[in-house]
Amino acid sequence: MKFGLFQTPFSPPERSPKQVFDWAVSQAVAAEQAGLAEFWVGQHFTLAWEAIPSPELVLAAAARETERIVLAPGAHIPPYANPASLAAQTAWLSNIVEGRYILGVATGVNPVDGQLHGFADMKRNLEMTVESLDIMERIWSGEPFEYKGKYWSSSFPAQDDSLPPLRYSKPYGGKMTIAIGGASPNSTSIKVGGERGLIPLSFGATPELVKNHWDTYAAAAEAAGRTDGYDRTIHHVTLDVFVADTDAEAERIAIEGPIAKAWRGHLIPNEQRRAARAGTPPVWSLDDDMRDIVRKHMIVGSPETVIEKLSAFVEASNGWGTTLIFGHDFSEDPAPWNYSLELLAKEVGPKVGLDVK
Amino acid sequence: MKFGLFQTPFSPPERSPKQVFDWAVSQAVAAEQAGLAEFWVGQHFTLAWEAIPSPELVLAAAARETERIVLAPGAHIPPYANPASLAAQTAWLSNIVEGRYILGVATGVNPVDGQLHGFADMKRNLEMTVESLDIMERIWSGEPFEYKGKYWSSSFPAQDDSLPPLRYSKPYGGKMTIAIGGASPNSTSIKVGGERGLIPLSFGATPELVKNHWDTYAAAAEAAGRTDGYDRTIHHVTLDVFVADTDAEAERIAIEGPIAKAWRGHLIPNEQRRAARAGTPPVWSLDDDMRDIVRKHMIVGSPETVIEKLSAFVEASNGWGTTLIFGHDFSEDPAPWNYSLELLAKEVGPKVGLDVK
Repeated sequence: MKFGLFQTPFSPPERSPKQVFDWAVSQAVAAEQAGLAEFWVGQHFTLAWEAIPSPELVLAAAARETERIVLAPGAHIPPYANPASLAAQTAWLSNIVEGRYILGVATGVNPVDGQLHGFADMKRNLEMTVESLDIMERIWSGEPFEYKGKYWSSSFPAQDDSLPPLRYSKPYGGKMTIAIGGASPNSTSIKVGGERGLIPLSFGATPELVKNHWDTYAAAAEAAGRTDGYDRTIHHVTLDVFVADTDAEAERIAIEGPIAKAWRGHLIPNEQRRAARAGTPPVWSLDDDMRDIVRKHMIVGSPETVIEKLSAFVEASNGWGTTLIFGHDFSEDPAPWNYSLELLAKEVGPKVGLDVK
Repeated sequence: MKFGLFQTPFSPPERSPKQVFDWAVSQAVAAEQAGLAEFWVGQHFTLAWEAIPSPELVLAAAARETERIVLAPGAHIPPYANPASLAAQTAWLSNIVEGRYILGVATGVNPVDGQLHGFADMKRNLEMTVESLDIMERIWSGEPFEYKGKYWSSSFPAQDDSLPPLRYSKPYGGKMTIAIGGASPNSTSIKVGGERGLIPLSFGATPELVKNHWDTYAAAAEAAGRTDGYDRTIHHVTLDVFVADTDAEAERIAIEGPIAKAWRGHLIPNEQRRAARAGTPPVWSLDDDMRDIVRKHMIVGSPETVIEKLSAFVEASNGWGTTLIFGHDFSEDPAPWNYSLELLAKEVGPKVGLDVK
């Protein structure tokens, strides 16, 4: 199994914007040094606990400080951008890192982020995302085109002597690698991914959701007549994972450190607010023992324990290719966190997953 | 006089996107080391010779590699962005560099860039720029608001218990420093700058244009009832300047090196195309001797000569505060170029301009 680091980020609100930026860039370097395959950065505009509005800024700085790791925005939200600017920026970044780039896109889920961008609701976001992808593919093609869409138009003229020499925004190697995120069962975003040949990225993973997303993806791919030989190794899944030398040490750090701080300060209250709106019991609450949450909803322990738990997850879900570990703010003492990344890449990865015989 | 480097960039079409990026970031470092005050990066989407679509990527990398120099996009084009994303990204970057940031904006002049963004013409661009600035000021305020505009809407709710803890996109120090670019006599953009208290930035400078822009700016400021004590030192002017130890050496490098290459490959043909469309004689043409162009349209020479020529320009125009030198691609041999920047900052700057008694 390959691992990546997913820098949502979960950053305590007391961190300054500069601290959030510097920690994120330093984590790209740490992830590369640990041997991880990918480094992802989220995009959120209004959440105190998820304080990166522009993942491309982190990735551009990381481009200068890394050499091997794949860099990825996770995710740009196409409804909130002019497709031409997004196509040009992502194509340039893919060239800057000489192809070690995946463009993550998502339709956007945060209603306050939507309001800030002038969206009273999210009903058009999927349709806009699809149209934006259509336009971006034309822009990346390196051919003149004219596109009149429902939400945007775009065109590029043929070169002639009346124009200065023109430049196309072609991705590195001529093709953009794109991933699309989904969080709900039967996700319409994951379905679009299956139809278009994008990498599926599952947020909020349980074995049931991972299985459902792959089934959704594969059914859409088959219906679209895809024949490009995709398989489950392209599937990306986010998880909270932490490894130390022993189970006791791993649990202690998870319960006393930044991971529990993010859960208690952000993820648990969010789930309680969601449940209150839905009128259903929360999956987890602040009344729960943190140790129970760690054992039930995360994968935490020694390398042996993590291999065992991840293997059971793979077994129950039919498996996937790349696990994206949610990053946490260990900026006050990075050593245990960076060590966990190293154990994952070097001890856990080779012994778990679809590619292990 | 203060100096800044303006990385349009003028990059030969044979340069790869990565080379353009790396050279730009390295020039931010070189400009700081030379003692320059500011480093600006342009935004162009479709010109082979001006190959940076996303100045924020260069600035984010430069943020990690510089400590003192002011970083500035020159310029973002608000009609081509959702104001919320632009406000959040620029506010974050201003925090990342702890306030050493100027947000340059412009209405956009390149029709092919406009087409790519779905703009059949540029008639609405100024009005959209003004509306975007209005929205961004609300977003940066750190207060709840609701804005319904002609081109965009945006709102931010008051915090209550039904919402997760919210984060505002406030610029560093609470206030964004903004500059607006203009190139035509009686520029409507410069007028907007005068009304709103933005920094005026004059492109394509002659003494007549510099004088006209300041008069346009001051008249608009007075009509708007501004009382904030602005003066000509805020005025930024772009120029082609190159300094070496002797006049002969400076002229030789300007005529044989990357400066003449950019003029002959890009700037002169552009002017000839413009003149052909307008049916008027070009200001300069490929038939002209490059030495005459250097002497007539640039400021090139020894420190003494450059002081003399700049002082005459200041005298004829009533002066300005900061000269932004157009950057050229000396990536194959940076030494003469970086030495020119150093001579400008250390030998020329103290002896020329409004602040010299």
